[in-house]
Amino acid sequence: MNSTEPIILITNDDGITAPGIRALIEAVKDLGKVVVVAPDSPQSGMGHAITIGSPLRLDKVDLFEGIEAWQCSGTPVDCVKLAKDKILHKRAHICLSGINHGANHSINVIYSGTMSAAMEAAIEGIPSIGFSLLDYKYNADFTLAKKVVREITERMLARTMPEHTLLNVNIPNVKENLYRGMKICRQAYAKWAEDFEQRTDPRGKHYYWMTGKFINMDKHSGTDVEALQEGYTSVVPVKIDFTDDKMKEWLEMEWKDWAKMP
Amino acid sequence: MNSTEPIILITNDDGITAPGIRALIEAVKDLGKVVVVAPDSPQSGMGHAITIGSPLRLDKVDLFEGIEAWQCSGTPVDCVKLAKDKILHKRAHICLSGINHGANHSINVIYSGTMSAAMEAAIEGIPSIGFSLLDYKYNADFTLAKKVVREITERMLARTMPEHTLLNVNIPNVKENLYRGMKICRQAYAKWAEDFEQRTDPRGKHYYWMTGKFINMDKHSGTDVEALQEGYTSVVPVKIDFTDDKMKEWLEMEWKDWAKMP
Repeated sequence: MNSTEPIILITNDDGITAPGIRALIEAVKDLGKVVVVAPDSPQSGMGHAITIGSPLRLDKVDLFEGIEAWQCSGTPVDCVKLAKDKILHKRAHICLSGINHGANHSINVIYSGTMSAAMEAAIEGIPSIGFSLLDYKYNADFTLAKKVVREITERMLARTMPEHTLLNVNIPNVKENLYRGMKICRQAYAKWAEDFEQRTDPRGKHYYWMTGKFINMDKHSGTDVEALQEGYTSVVPVKIDFTDDKMKEWLEMEWKDWAKMP
Repeated sequence: MNSTEPIILITNDDGITAPGIRALIEAVKDLGKVVVVAPDSPQSGMGHAITIGSPLRLDKVDLFEGIEAWQCSGTPVDCVKLAKDKILHKRAHICLSGINHGANHSINVIYSGTMSAAMEAAIEGIPSIGFSLLDYKYNADFTLAKKVVREITERMLARTMPEHTLLNVNIPNVKENLYRGMKICRQAYAKWAEDFEQRTDPRGKHYYWMTGKFINMDKHSGTDVEALQEGYTSVVPVKIDFTDDKMKEWLEMEWKDWAKMP
């Protein structure tokens, strides 16, 4: 290892055997020293979960030629925490998470293990990016996605980024001749309308499967959902301070008879 | 049930048998029609996890006198989703989550199942509050916390709140004579320094327990951590749009040669 090489920490939430993480590694492996620490099983929808009540396993695996790789029994966030404390012993220069099989735009930033892993690294002060391709299929075509990953990673490594830089990057599922480039966006206001499917087990007891329909409630322009529909890659910078400043002002006014101000 | 009564959805992440949720119910049960939907096991640190890959159980239980209550095999966010789709069939007027045994101030908002449940309800447009008491003990004293819960819930029910109102309320572990009241705050910048403890199992293989030390990196005033140290209840309004507007402006400037603007 060249000591001037940047350390690139790679993780995901689809698990270490997913084609998406292999595509991510291939896209950036010559840009620095790549270290992979990823879940040993699919962890989609795990959000920012951490493992408190049970112990974690961490095992070195030989899956990617010439690349140091570890699989972990925990969540994507556990992977980032273990990578820092038990594997790297120092701060990575950049953390890349993905490439997720399926969209993580709009409100999905909070359900997504891919984005939560990147967020965990950003809390540590590591510039981080979560990459997602709008194709849920196992055998999705990552050709365009790999080019996007490389372009953005090169940009991020080329200069010092602001503290706690965290980008949510979604790549449209389009042919390259229809691809329109990159767009800086804001998170669309959207939600999932769940419709749990009720079934009955062989003992006559009910159980429920979560199903859901995505609803974009955002009628204004400039959103990630809109950019993706137009054939752009959406880039949404994400905060790790969730304070609602407008609501804070409102409360300071409305509750001033009662609550102390800062 | 009186049809003009507000519907109060109650959940938590410590599980339906935790004393904290019982304290929460007792504090507000005469303010409306209370419906409890909470995890059947402890779910601390589950963040915004949802259950996709396995089915969910939902069972009516008789735990709180005169109160409709359900236990769910899933995460706190699953509870809120199931409550809406399978139990209430309409929008609750308010969602209360907690009272959590232990702090959820500062960065803990993203790890906490208590706050994630409240956030899920806020995405649905239900004014929501996560309550936490700074005492991890099972037999924590919720006397002061119950008064705080009641005060804030009454305020929230008394008037129409802004859309997507979500409050992170932490209550200090102090005697009532040292308690100083409520303070509107911002989220402190803090993080956890993990130090995984390595052990060896009977077969000679390593495993790891997550341990961690909380570090407040925020030297400025006006934070929730500061208010709690001074003996105040901290009230932090939380956003569900995580777009980093400052970083967005920075990218629009720095990457203008390359990325399209909104």
